Amino acid sequence: MKKVSIVMGSSSDLRVMEEAVKVLRELEIEVEVDIVSAHRTPQKMFDFAAHAHERGIQVIIAGAGGAAHLPGMIASLTPLPVIGVPVKSSNSIDGWDSVLSILQMPAGVPVATVALDGARNAGILAAQILGAGDEAVRDRIIRFKKGLEDKVNIMSEETRTQFE
Amino acid sequence: MKKVSIVMGSSSDLRVMEEAVKVLRELEIEVEVDIVSAHRTPQKMFDFAAHAHERGIQVIIAGAGGAAHLPGMIASLTPLPVIGVPVKSSNSIDGWDSVLSILQMPAGVPVATVALDGARNAGILAAQILGAGDEAVRDRIIRFKKGLEDKVNIMSEETRTQFE
Amino acid sequence: MKKVSIVMGSSSDLRVMEEAVKVLRELEIEVEVDIVSAHRTPQKMFDFAAHAHERGIQVIIAGAGGAAHLPGMIASLTPLPVIGVPVKSSNSIDGWDSVLSILQMPAGVPVATVALDGARNAGILAAQILGAGDEAVRDRIIRFKKGLEDKVNIMSEETRTQFE
Amino acid sequence: MKKVSIVMGSSSDLRVMEEAVKVLRELEIEVEVDIVSAHRTPQKMFDFAAHAHERGIQVIIAGAGGAAHLPGMIASLTPLPVIGVPVKSSNSIDGWDSVLSILQMPAGVPVATVALDGARNAGILAAQILGAGDEAVRDRIIRFKKGLEDKVNIMSEETRTQFE
Amino acid sequence: MKKVSIVMGSSSDLRVMEEAVKVLRELEIEVEVDIVSAHRTPQKMFDFAAHAHERGIQVIIAGAGGAAHLPGMIASLTPLPVIGVPVKSSNSIDGWDSVLSILQMPAGVPVATVALDGARNAGILAAQILGAGDEAVRDRIIRFKKGLEDKVNIMSEETRTQFE
Amino acid sequence: MKKVSIVMGSSSDLRVMEEAVKVLRELEIEVEVDIVSAHRTPQKMFDFAAHAHERGIQVIIAGAGGAAHLPGMIASLTPLPVIGVPVKSSNSIDGWDSVLSILQMPAGVPVATVALDGARNAGILAAQILGAGDEAVRDRIIRFKKGLEDKVNIMSEETRTQFE
Amino acid sequence: MKKVSIVMGSSSDLRVMEEAVKVLRELEIEVEVDIVSAHRTPQKMFDFAAHAHERGIQVIIAGAGGAAHLPGMIASLTPLPVIGVPVKSSNSIDGWDSVLSILQMPAGVPVATVALDGARNAGILAAQILGAGDEAVRDRIIRFKKGLEDKVNIMSEETRTQFE
Amino acid sequence: MKKVSIVMGSSSDLRVMEEAVKVLRELEIEVEVDIVSAHRTPQKMFDFAAHAHERGIQVIIAGAGGAAHLPGMIASLTPLPVIGVPVKSSNSIDGWDSVLSILQMPAGVPVATVALDGARNAGILAAQILGAGDEAVRDRIIRFKKGLEDKVNIMSEETRTQFE
Repeated sequence: MKKVSIVMGSSSDLRVMEEAVKVLRELEIEVEVDIVSAHRTPQKMFDFAAHAHERGIQVIIAGAGGAAHLPGMIASLTPLPVIGVPVKSSNSIDGWDSVLSILQMPAGVPVATVALDGARNAGILAAQILGAGDEAVRDRIIRFKKGLEDKVNIMSEETRTQFE
Repeated sequence: MKKVSIVMGSSSDLRVMEEAVKVLRELEIEVEVDIVSAHRTPQKMFDFAAHAHERGIQVIIAGAGGAAHLPGMIASLTPLPVIGVPVKSSNSIDGWDSVLSILQMPAGVPVATVALDGARNAGILAAQILGAGDEAVRDRIIRFKKGLEDKVNIMSEETRTQFE
Repeated sequence: MKKVSIVMGSSSDLRVMEEAVKVLRELEIEVEVDIVSAHRTPQKMFDFAAHAHERGIQVIIAGAGGAAHLPGMIASLTPLPVIGVPVKSSNSIDGWDSVLSILQMPAGVPVATVALDGARNAGILAAQILGAGDEAVRDRIIRFKKGLEDKVNIMSEETRTQFE
Repeated sequence: MKKVSIVMGSSSDLRVMEEAVKVLRELEIEVEVDIVSAHRTPQKMFDFAAHAHERGIQVIIAGAGGAAHLPGMIASLTPLPVIGVPVKSSNSIDGWDSVLSILQMPAGVPVATVALDGARNAGILAAQILGAGDEAVRDRIIRFKKGLEDKVNIMSEETRTQFE
Repeated sequence: MKKVSIVMGSSSDLRVMEEAVKVLRELEIEVEVDIVSAHRTPQKMFDFAAHAHERGIQVIIAGAGGAAHLPGMIASLTPLPVIGVPVKSSNSIDGWDSVLSILQMPAGVPVATVALDGARNAGILAAQILGAGDEAVRDRIIRFKKGLEDKVNIMSEETRTQFE
Repeated sequence: MKKVSIVMGSSSDLRVMEEAVKVLRELEIEVEVDIVSAHRTPQKMFDFAAHAHERGIQVIIAGAGGAAHLPGMIASLTPLPVIGVPVKSSNSIDGWDSVLSILQMPAGVPVATVALDGARNAGILAAQILGAGDEAVRDRIIRFKKGLEDKVNIMSEETRTQFE
Repeated sequence: MKKVSIVMGSSSDLRVMEEAVKVLRELEIEVEVDIVSAHRTPQKMFDFAAHAHERGIQVIIAGAGGAAHLPGMIASLTPLPVIGVPVKSSNSIDGWDSVLSILQMPAGVPVATVALDGARNAGILAAQILGAGDEAVRDRIIRFKKGLEDKVNIMSEETRTQFE
Repeated sequence: MKKVSIVMGSSSDLRVMEEAVKVLRELEIEVEVDIVSAHRTPQKMFDFAAHAHERGIQVIIAGAGGAAHLPGMIASLTPLPVIGVPVKSSNSIDGWDSVLSILQMPAGVPVATVALDGARNAGILAAQILGAGDEAVRDRIIRFKKGLEDKVNIMSEETRTQFE
């Protein structure tokens, strides 16, 4: 059963958002992916957000750019944790609009915001949330973090040699 | 019949938003006022926005602070012009979040944004919109602008005297 | 009779502003287009702004970049609603100057500001303003919004298939 | 057993951070609270972060201001989801430093960032994370969201009456 | 004959702008002071700006806040040098709007911009401009700068003693 | 005799600054041009700034990028009006550092700041300053402004035809 | 012999800068303190900066606000390390001008910049610089850092008790 | 013996950071270079920072981008002066995140911050710190500064000729 749902406002956001898909698959977590626009398909967004938890979804990742209302509106309609990815879309003012309209949610309705274009981190955070109550997932995260360390150690090796 | 609807996310926004009510009453335009929260009463917001034009409303003014989704979400649900008032609420980062999350709407769904805390201008703009097709309203706007000019002329008089 | 007038400070703004022309023509609304510079042809701007409403114009769209005074100065001279389009011109500081010098008008003289380079939304907003008192126009806007929804649904279809 | 750990860099952050404690207690979730400074007690931070998951902690909330390294450094050391609260401390530049040094984590090490001074939302998000795999907690969140809606409806009632 | 004209958009700007009057009087230069609003008295602004040089005015100082169009619009209408003072008015976003809408003038129409609320420097700059071609004025500026130096030397004296 | 001196911190600034040379030559005003670095040739800068007025120079234009100290330091050493041009150099943070370190001079020592990369306007402003006391120069500025107007009128003609 | 010199542009900066004096005295390092203004006493600044290293000074701390040129200009004149303290003075735009005009020095002339109003850290950094080649000073820094840790541990103790 | 250690979070930072290596070698100071990531190799960072001074290292230069925690975390663990280089990495918001998360350290733990991508200045500053107590190094810095001056004088020569 798919536990993570990844949605975004336009297929032009896929370029950024597919990093979330990739890392979740690396972590052996199944995902569903869809285009849901807060501003152009508000009824579809409502139906999606209000019922996701009834379909077994446990975490929602939502990416959007500019005046990015999708993550916050989904958060207003679901009891699930919602991860927001600010996308630096072509119509954005250097990404500030995306970041602030996702991050600055009012008290009562949080969105777990990650870095600008940080879809890969959104995927990892979704896995960590599932892993909070699931040791098998958590072990995969621990191995994943070990992999990050290994890559830095290889870079370190090469760099020290280069500058000796 | 009420032609302008003024909504905001919390009664704490009334401090700012009642300037819109005042100026519209000065311009002899009837208004309705309500609290509608995109994040806390999403269904009510949906119903309000989807049906306002059927009740004879011709312009909607929406005020919100922080990650301010109310004006944009209403705009996604109504064919009416929506005027957005960014409110510098206590949880705002100097007002930038309010401004950007109202102004930077994606292509297809405009919000007519006014200055930070600019509720008075939102009221005047609503009157100008009604006046686009109604000469009586437009004449009141012309008189209103004349009044602004008169006040500056009085200030000018006093200042020149003071520094002579 | 032309009801919407689209003006901008330089023909270099046409690249952005012609989106307003296009969408208004899609919505079967006739427009006039002109170059009027607040800083280089101030007298022409005065004459244009002070008399537009006498020629049957009901909405003015004005685009400008940098220290963008055109929309606000027109608004000071006309009783009509003025829509301002901040243009990210080559001499702009990331667009912030354009946005702030159009948006932050003082109480009494509103400009309906849209997103940076948001000329398409300016056109749609002009149509919504005309539609506030004209059911035929409003119906076209409702169909236009339906078209936006249809496009997202097609993207949704494709994306779900791609990630199944 | 305590499942949520709330840490911050200084007891001066308690003014903000105790909102997280309060809302988690409202949601019947036990918390531990401690002062851990990335910059002044780095070894303690290391020990805390590396072993929290072994003590049954499932979510960590970390608040910090200025160059706020605590949430990100804890995230580098734990497989658990880490929620970061940017605190607008006295030495902060309008909160931008706190926000950016928590939000903009590199790929591989996410921090779930909430709004500036958004400790209440950090608490709610922690509950949602626990609720992702625990129906009893999720039901409490659904009731909590219902409570938010009720409060807005009461404000709505009062406001409509006031402006009738 | 008065050679410097000081104008501002509202008498609420006097609090800031009277520093320009004071320093010019210290430098024995006569000034005229008036309230002229670009947005509320556009015709008066036009007449003022187009004819100031015919009355013997040699420098214009214009102060304004928010979307501050007064200095730039005057500059578009006069061949005289125009000094712009960005005023941090109550409706300003931390002064950024005032600064950018005065500073970022397009090629062809300069405004000599001074610091936010920098009316005292506007006055000194006006004197320096007059002094460019008038040795008596320049000598007063040289004495004025000597006075600044003397004050710092006194502070230096006191401080060194205090920390010995 | 040369009345305007144009200096900049590096020959890499010439790309921007030569616009000032060009426009002053168009206005028949002779200029001198030199490289003077506040940070790398402080003694040369001192000598230049302290004695420029003794050589008949009446206006100084100084361009610099990043932490741009050249205009302000020259202003501290000369009784002449100093025009500062913030240059968006490669090491600048989007130009903000250049703008703020030139504009925000303390009371007592003004710099007449123009737009980012606004060297052309610096040249025009220098001419206006000379023209404050010299009718021949002022007449050339009036003709120059007429030329700006003519160009816009030609653009206007073309654009109206194109969209008829 | 005094090894650290602390200078600032005005005695109004003492409120911030005396923290540097205090912490250096805590670390048993003698300091001299003076008022030196880049803009009002440029010659004095030149003499101070060019000769400080000849008097045995090893580190210079310079504080300034607004367009803060003092640290950078001193750095251009001395071979010594210069620590810059951006002061959030009354004429500053939220401190951004102070920070950027100290931090963004061009290649060749570094200033060691600390946080806005971070005079205490400037003092500690000066001690660390002296300690780079002096074991006695370094040992005092190690004890100083131990003291920071102890204070956090006491806060930790109290906080854990309070929330048990 | 190597006295300066240059570390960075990823080998992708080498493009910027090798400027520090180069200038230190020009100044005849030996360096070591390594990759140490605060977020991916926290234990390695701890060991490096806690023991660097025991190996004879006298200054540490640390470069990082985005939420840049490496310089501050090293500073928390060492008694040595730490120079931070904000790197404008691909995931950075125009460099603001890198700058603020390095610069805005809390009282007690300074980082000597240089300009965005200012690795060359970090190297020079490291040399100045070593030179504070070592006359041979200081003499090389004096010669280095003379070299900067010479280059500007050559540019000056060429430019004056070009515009004669």
